[in-house]
Amino acid sequence: MNACVRAVVRAALYRSVETVGVSRGYSGLWSGDAQALTSRSVGGIARWGGTILQTARCEEFCTPEGFQKGINNIRTLGIEGLVVIGGDGSLRGARELHNAGIPCVGAPASIDNDICGTDMAIGTDTATNTILEALDKIKDTASAHQRAFVVGVMGRRSGYLALAAGVAGGAEMVIVPERPMSMEEIVKEMAQARERGKPHFIIVVAEGARPTATDICECLNTVAGPKYEARLTVLGHVQRGGSPTAADRLLATKLGASAVEMLLSGQSGIMVGIRAGRPVAMPLDEVLAEERPADEELVRLEEMMAL
Amino acid sequence: MNACVRAVVRAALYRSVETVGVSRGYSGLWSGDAQALTSRSVGGIARWGGTILQTARCEEFCTPEGFQKGINNIRTLGIEGLVVIGGDGSLRGARELHNAGIPCVGAPASIDNDICGTDMAIGTDTATNTILEALDKIKDTASAHQRAFVVGVMGRRSGYLALAAGVAGGAEMVIVPERPMSMEEIVKEMAQARERGKPHFIIVVAEGARPTATDICECLNTVAGPKYEARLTVLGHVQRGGSPTAADRLLATKLGASAVEMLLSGQSGIMVGIRAGRPVAMPLDEVLAEERPADEELVRLEEMMAL
Amino acid sequence: MNACVRAVVRAALYRSVETVGVSRGYSGLWSGDAQALTSRSVGGIARWGGTILQTARCEEFCTPEGFQKGINNIRTLGIEGLVVIGGDGSLRGARELHNAGIPCVGAPASIDNDICGTDMAIGTDTATNTILEALDKIKDTASAHQRAFVVGVMGRRSGYLALAAGVAGGAEMVIVPERPMSMEEIVKEMAQARERGKPHFIIVVAEGARPTATDICECLNTVAGPKYEARLTVLGHVQRGGSPTAADRLLATKLGASAVEMLLSGQSGIMVGIRAGRPVAMPLDEVLAEERPADEELVRLEEMMAL
Amino acid sequence: MNACVRAVVRAALYRSVETVGVSRGYSGLWSGDAQALTSRSVGGIARWGGTILQTARCEEFCTPEGFQKGINNIRTLGIEGLVVIGGDGSLRGARELHNAGIPCVGAPASIDNDICGTDMAIGTDTATNTILEALDKIKDTASAHQRAFVVGVMGRRSGYLALAAGVAGGAEMVIVPERPMSMEEIVKEMAQARERGKPHFIIVVAEGARPTATDICECLNTVAGPKYEARLTVLGHVQRGGSPTAADRLLATKLGASAVEMLLSGQSGIMVGIRAGRPVAMPLDEVLAEERPADEELVRLEEMMAL
Repeated sequence: MNACVRAVVRAALYRSVETVGVSRGYSGLWSGDAQALTSRSVGGIARWGGTILQTARCEEFCTPEGFQKGINNIRTLGIEGLVVIGGDGSLRGARELHNAGIPCVGAPASIDNDICGTDMAIGTDTATNTILEALDKIKDTASAHQRAFVVGVMGRRSGYLALAAGVAGGAEMVIVPERPMSMEEIVKEMAQARERGKPHFIIVVAEGARPTATDICECLNTVAGPKYEARLTVLGHVQRGGSPTAADRLLATKLGASAVEMLLSGQSGIMVGIRAGRPVAMPLDEVLAEERPADEELVRLEEMMAL
Repeated sequence: MNACVRAVVRAALYRSVETVGVSRGYSGLWSGDAQALTSRSVGGIARWGGTILQTARCEEFCTPEGFQKGINNIRTLGIEGLVVIGGDGSLRGARELHNAGIPCVGAPASIDNDICGTDMAIGTDTATNTILEALDKIKDTASAHQRAFVVGVMGRRSGYLALAAGVAGGAEMVIVPERPMSMEEIVKEMAQARERGKPHFIIVVAEGARPTATDICECLNTVAGPKYEARLTVLGHVQRGGSPTAADRLLATKLGASAVEMLLSGQSGIMVGIRAGRPVAMPLDEVLAEERPADEELVRLEEMMAL
Repeated sequence: MNACVRAVVRAALYRSVETVGVSRGYSGLWSGDAQALTSRSVGGIARWGGTILQTARCEEFCTPEGFQKGINNIRTLGIEGLVVIGGDGSLRGARELHNAGIPCVGAPASIDNDICGTDMAIGTDTATNTILEALDKIKDTASAHQRAFVVGVMGRRSGYLALAAGVAGGAEMVIVPERPMSMEEIVKEMAQARERGKPHFIIVVAEGARPTATDICECLNTVAGPKYEARLTVLGHVQRGGSPTAADRLLATKLGASAVEMLLSGQSGIMVGIRAGRPVAMPLDEVLAEERPADEELVRLEEMMAL
Repeated sequence: MNACVRAVVRAALYRSVETVGVSRGYSGLWSGDAQALTSRSVGGIARWGGTILQTARCEEFCTPEGFQKGINNIRTLGIEGLVVIGGDGSLRGARELHNAGIPCVGAPASIDNDICGTDMAIGTDTATNTILEALDKIKDTASAHQRAFVVGVMGRRSGYLALAAGVAGGAEMVIVPERPMSMEEIVKEMAQARERGKPHFIIVVAEGARPTATDICECLNTVAGPKYEARLTVLGHVQRGGSPTAADRLLATKLGASAVEMLLSGQSGIMVGIRAGRPVAMPLDEVLAEERPADEELVRLEEMMAL
């Protein structure tokens, strides 16, 4: 996200517009916590994981009084337009602000890549690479041990991360929320893979999938017995950090700069996304109306590549 | 490239088509050096840099006799269609083979991202991240020393790598073949950046740019004297290796699988590229006719972000 | 381990001695599975995780008949001396072989660093860095969320990995097998850390410690309620892979070369270890007699650094 | 170095001693630029490359007047003892301060590992791993091209980095300041390696070696002609940055904590080093009297491993 903050500040400065950074998202909007950002104060931040503005949930902002307090702070601080970087929840807030008359442009940030209106969200590429490195390391010793490895990754509603990392990392099976499987099917596929001569069996499981990574691991170690010695890896918040990849920084830079340009051209109530490498705008109403479907191309590739 | 080889083999297998791997490109075609590839022989290769099939130049293949020898080998080996993975030179060869009646589909691989007909070429994302890591490391001590750092990167005709890494890595200046600069302009921009309070000055220079990285460094250390103590980094072939990123492996997988599908559907003389995440085909004649122009969006972002 | 294999082969070759590689450890010894290794066959292997010789457990070798079969194979293959690379179990086997008259020198390999007679074992440095990267990534977003992060790492009997990574990575608490703690103590320390203004709380837990990482996480999320929102990371076999670090490759090279020199000078029944950067020998009887105690210096540093 | 700063602050705090951080080394001492450091202000810094205290050269401090000004600042700031982290130059300054009556303990930091009185200096392990990654990447495509790769690394007086990375990374030749070679010898060794079947030839050259990396590359490309197509990599300041490795952070933590303990026990005019993993003290006079000799063990290993 830092690369996006940097882009907003410098793209604004390029047009002689000043910027302030609101700390901890809507929490800072509610409490009026904001500082002027200069080109120097965003220098060198693009390579740090996390965000210099920090994030937090804010229940107060969700109440009518809290929301009004936030709007008052926006006016007091002299803010003429907002760039809101975040996922579903953040973008809903942006729509509310737009509806209340505050010029607002959203930029999609979500490691799950579950936001409509953009090919990719900020953070997804970095998280995919983090999982990929874990899979590569598991493979180093996997072939030496003839075991099953169950790897739990993020993705509450969306299996994108699991599929993308699974295809790139050569997992033998990927289990996603959009496509539930039974333990019987899993065990059967494992048996078939072993017959095809697969030296190991790696299962990538998204957080929101059923059965869960823990369930699968326990089942393999109890029901299936010594035949399938299963080992568990749960990456957890490791996936949310790390120095962003080049693709993530470039995406964040494009989106941040475009968000500023759209605001300055009078647009609001939209999210800026990327399509074929170019910035595109979509009304927040549309972005938030749809559930992003599973990437059928990835599902198909996963099936082929697991051969 | 290994991920592309894996994809070709497994996508073919998925349709019950057998594959052979030709070693060292046209050199192996000329000498008839090819082995059957099975799902197992491409297992786990996607994470290695380089390619299991190796690469080489082959002058013999460029002669009419050598070319005919290659065609005879294709027939003898029972090859019914070819997927050619590579850059400009490789794709020219693919066009020749197509013109000689051999079904041929190309897949773009080039760290310079200088091939028309695709958003991205295989290898570019990995190389960009390698340069980015170098820039990040230089920045760690750059701010502590108030020096100029000149970083030479690949890109003989194209400044894509330099621009992409420069924007992502926060370089103060990027010099590319498509946009020559004079030493006077460079020194002037450095002076202005210092006035704006920039704690360091990093110049990324593409291989084909003028002046070169070495020239700039020497000039700063002699003409400008102690005022601009410049340090040189030349990354060289470090940029060609390394475990491929997730984006590169996914791209290579998509292109490899699509190339097989296109061949099987009777297409030839085309290159499969990626556009907005989806495979697209372009005739090799078109691909090879145009010089890919500099990415104007990146040029514009670089200017803004260097503020 | 590959760097050690390379070192054994080339150090032997340097003295005009031939080497064969036994596949899958004692399993290959039992089945007579061994190939000649040349300088070329170990070229470039040092950077791969795992080992080209593969590893496996072998119950047959543990029986008197299986052991005798292994000894016969050693004689049949013309093996005049053995370098055994591995942990506790492998070194016990080496002692048995020495007692049966086969010249044998052990080299310690264990990511837990739980082997006596050496400052460091092969694999420990790489695993520590892998954990450290995970901790660094967790910290990126940890400060933004005010949560507790529980990270389970390897170490069944030894807390070395947990302590080393915890001190290097700035964990707030490290729980090791050698020093059990109660949940009450853990919750109390967390409360104190929060009072000192710590923006996050990271607990590194070794595999063999009590309570376990999973126990701690569950307890924090149920008993302590919303006050301590805990998130779990279990690294699992990710810790066993990855390209070895420079320190690991240098250590493995020193130990492998010295093992060959010791064998050639007529020594046997010993393990070669490292002490202050220099190779030292210790009788396998001594190595296997003692439990390596917890590193008191690390325990002390951990306490100070968690302030 | 940040890990060392953290260790000094927290080890002092552990003994209820306050710390101030002097900015930019002797430059800050001269100008009186220092801030109180708390446990919180050093939280999370260990993973950043560079140093939060910044570094700079200071010519003024080298004059008798400047030195006296520094001493006066030390007294004014209420500093009762100094921990000086750095290389040769920094340690000379520490000796001067000690001789002038200021309690001073040095800690060795130098990526060249060229300081006597310690097995390893802070920064060396990180730099070695950075070079190693570059060598690994070069090897990925090196075997596919049959070329010579010349890699210039740091080390003005000491070849430690070049040797350590060269042995770990499997370089075919390492050229260090302590052991000059002629171009004839280099070309001869290359020819012999090719005869032994080496698929590539990587030469690691320390900065202070003769001939230099640039000289070797130019010579191979002109004199030896197309037979030896040589490619140059110069890593430069990339080697000075990057997130420190686990070993570097542990070393820095041990040295920082010990330096505080030594100061508090009344010691001065010494440098704290590491020997077999334990802190040891050596008088600065001795540390600065000797030139650290080349590591003969590494030279020997390099010769064997290049086979």
